[in-house]
Amino acid sequence: MTSDPVTPWGKGTSVVSIRQFDPLRVAELFALADRMGAGAEGVGALARGRIMATLFYEPSTRTRLSFEAAMLRLGGQVVSTENAASMSSAVKGESLADTVRIVSGYADVIVLRHHEAGAARLAAAAADVPVLNAGDGPGEHPTQALLDAYTIVRRTGRLDHLRVALVGDMAYGRTAHSLSLLLANYPGQTITFVAPDVARAPAALVAELRARGATVVESEDFGAAIADCDVLYMTRVQKERFPSPELYARAQGRFALDADALARLSPRAWILHPLPRLGELPEAVDADPRAVYFEQARNGVPIRMALLARALGAA
Amino acid sequence: MTSDPVTPWGKGTSVVSIRQFDPLRVAELFALADRMGAGAEGVGALARGRIMATLFYEPSTRTRLSFEAAMLRLGGQVVSTENAASMSSAVKGESLADTVRIVSGYADVIVLRHHEAGAARLAAAAADVPVLNAGDGPGEHPTQALLDAYTIVRRTGRLDHLRVALVGDMAYGRTAHSLSLLLANYPGQTITFVAPDVARAPAALVAELRARGATVVESEDFGAAIADCDVLYMTRVQKERFPSPELYARAQGRFALDADALARLSPRAWILHPLPRLGELPEAVDADPRAVYFEQARNGVPIRMALLARALGAA
Amino acid sequence: MTSDPVTPWGKGTSVVSIRQFDPLRVAELFALADRMGAGAEGVGALARGRIMATLFYEPSTRTRLSFEAAMLRLGGQVVSTENAASMSSAVKGESLADTVRIVSGYADVIVLRHHEAGAARLAAAAADVPVLNAGDGPGEHPTQALLDAYTIVRRTGRLDHLRVALVGDMAYGRTAHSLSLLLANYPGQTITFVAPDVARAPAALVAELRARGATVVESEDFGAAIADCDVLYMTRVQKERFPSPELYARAQGRFALDADALARLSPRAWILHPLPRLGELPEAVDADPRAVYFEQARNGVPIRMALLARALGAA
Repeated sequence: MTSDPVTPWGKGTSVVSIRQFDPLRVAELFALADRMGAGAEGVGALARGRIMATLFYEPSTRTRLSFEAAMLRLGGQVVSTENAASMSSAVKGESLADTVRIVSGYADVIVLRHHEAGAARLAAAAADVPVLNAGDGPGEHPTQALLDAYTIVRRTGRLDHLRVALVGDMAYGRTAHSLSLLLANYPGQTITFVAPDVARAPAALVAELRARGATVVESEDFGAAIADCDVLYMTRVQKERFPSPELYARAQGRFALDADALARLSPRAWILHPLPRLGELPEAVDADPRAVYFEQARNGVPIRMALLARALGAA
Repeated sequence: MTSDPVTPWGKGTSVVSIRQFDPLRVAELFALADRMGAGAEGVGALARGRIMATLFYEPSTRTRLSFEAAMLRLGGQVVSTENAASMSSAVKGESLADTVRIVSGYADVIVLRHHEAGAARLAAAAADVPVLNAGDGPGEHPTQALLDAYTIVRRTGRLDHLRVALVGDMAYGRTAHSLSLLLANYPGQTITFVAPDVARAPAALVAELRARGATVVESEDFGAAIADCDVLYMTRVQKERFPSPELYARAQGRFALDADALARLSPRAWILHPLPRLGELPEAVDADPRAVYFEQARNGVPIRMALLARALGAA
Repeated sequence: MTSDPVTPWGKGTSVVSIRQFDPLRVAELFALADRMGAGAEGVGALARGRIMATLFYEPSTRTRLSFEAAMLRLGGQVVSTENAASMSSAVKGESLADTVRIVSGYADVIVLRHHEAGAARLAAAAADVPVLNAGDGPGEHPTQALLDAYTIVRRTGRLDHLRVALVGDMAYGRTAHSLSLLLANYPGQTITFVAPDVARAPAALVAELRARGATVVESEDFGAAIADCDVLYMTRVQKERFPSPELYARAQGRFALDADALARLSPRAWILHPLPRLGELPEAVDADPRAVYFEQARNGVPIRMALLARALGAA
């Protein structure tokens, strides 16, 4: 959670952290994503002759397919592995640095998913080509935060002066962390973390958000939070965090968007969820006009197209 | 085995069941497959800029590679997973409906392989793009039945007035079920199921075939069946069905196309097998001019090209 | 290690063994690889409309990605499996011959990785399309030997009159075997195998190299070997070969290119390693100007582009 210096986002740069994106760069990215999503002329040839390698040390099929679809829609090609861990197995040990250096010889851009925080930064330093962080353990998942924010701005028309309720596991939920850091760069934010006591947001994160000027509320009162918000960002509460199944069931029930909660939800609120979902977001919500989580998932493609095109120096 | 209503095959429709194909639509598909196989002009660009997602909840490398080759030969692109089950694991549970809805945001057509009967129908209802059923457990495998029939018509010149012997596991062999249902739509058929007593064809299937006008024979007399047939459709007898290894060995031996059986086989019969094969189809048969099972496997590509092009609305 | 006859390398031929490459064909291949690496005009369209299938019975992500990148850079397409073993599982047993015959129906060229020596030869005999051997167990790995030699000639300017020290597991290290066989076709070679006693080069290999005219030295004196050589080819010493962890640690330490060894290394020597590496090649060596192992890995792409283009009859 320390605020170490990073290269601001731009042509040919790696994307390892949401901290590379100030409001100006976010605006630039979203303008590019608009063009990608609209299928502007020439978009389908931007990555022609270029190769993206997906290097996944843990499976994440959604994220991988989203990146691959983005690269293919740019006219590029893909080499892919969900089996990267076998490259550093006991039998054939290899450091992450060696692996990305070798894969740099095959591909023009690398998409990395890893189980350890900091892996993306290490890989970006070792690689000869740009590295895009597709999630590094409890670390960051910057492209998810960007597509979340893109969904918010397309629905609310702004990224400032928002009342955002983030609900669920706020201790380890890296998408909630990255999104709140991104939003705190804009003025007038009220960020409410709704979490069970065992899964509260890290104190360092709360302090940093406040230092950036955001009003941060920590709460277990789900009902109050959803009654007055512009964005409701639901996440899974993870069973394994709880000392007993009974306590889990109680927390789960308190933070679920059931029919009662949906009735109390602010009429102006948009419902987001990074998916996959469990009981906290019943399928009955899908028909609600405020539900935009499938649109949110689809927004991953133009956002990743824009990030890839820029990393390749093609846009 | 109930005859529920399905959308007839056409532009932009999903393919979940062989019941979507009446003789007119079969003829239309095969004419399209002929053009695909002949590499008619423009075929290699029909799917340009389109993406097919393979969503496999169980590995089936042959079927997956066949679909992928078909899409690539149409000029399209592929994103692929054999690991779809991990998307609905205990850790990150996700319903099939959610998964296909998300993948609909990445791809223009989805090829689904699943271990549960009915999965393809459910997926087709949830997806925003067409779904092609690449086998759903004990349910259906319609593209296999279509390539089987395509092989038959290219060799015999017709799909009616055939004497067809289907041999092996007739209880659970979904390819035999789907093929017999397809063939029973044509007049003058004689369908002989040759199966050990423990693996007989379901009574409901036999009844339905008869209701459609086919003559259905159930037999354990392999020798008699092969002496007078136009098509011999061999399948694996599955060891795990048998109460003892001895009974399995006996059944296996009785339904194997060994040298004696090959000598008794009707000279006009074509030998098909969905592959993979075990002892029921010795490699010595490969040199026989009536053996067309590798040609049958190759026919999967033009058939799937035709299905994909039609699903994409491109042909 | 027997010298059975093989088809010399040429248009449309399979690549199963390094024995298919005499010095004339090696020169022809390297000239083609030079054009590929330089991105000569038209190279990106040589495989347009063609499909390569990777059929991997054991994972080898580096080799697979290198072949896939090569095919894509030729403008071709790829269907891929690291799961080929499941095609011949107990449940759905299938012979390698059947599998490659079926895959021949989907693809224009097959890249095979298998755990059994001789698998590539068997597959090439059964397939209707060319097969490229990407390693068959303790057998051969000819494309690795070719990219090794390509790296040597690009750095030293020649393939004859070389002093080559091969270090590590010389008993089972197939890359060292294949490379030494390739080099022994040229005059004036001195090949020194530096191996612990438990992992000496096979007597048949040594005899064959001598029969071809090479001077072969077997040694455990790492220091002497590296003091006077043009090429230092390091490989992993495999722990499981040793009777005890203590003996392994001793051997490992003796054959590691640590600071002392690096100081003694001939100033004209180029350092190669097929990677992945363990302790025998510390990361501190990476900055040494004689270290060319990452360049060696990158050379895999133009070499495999040349082999694929020739196999497809496109160059």
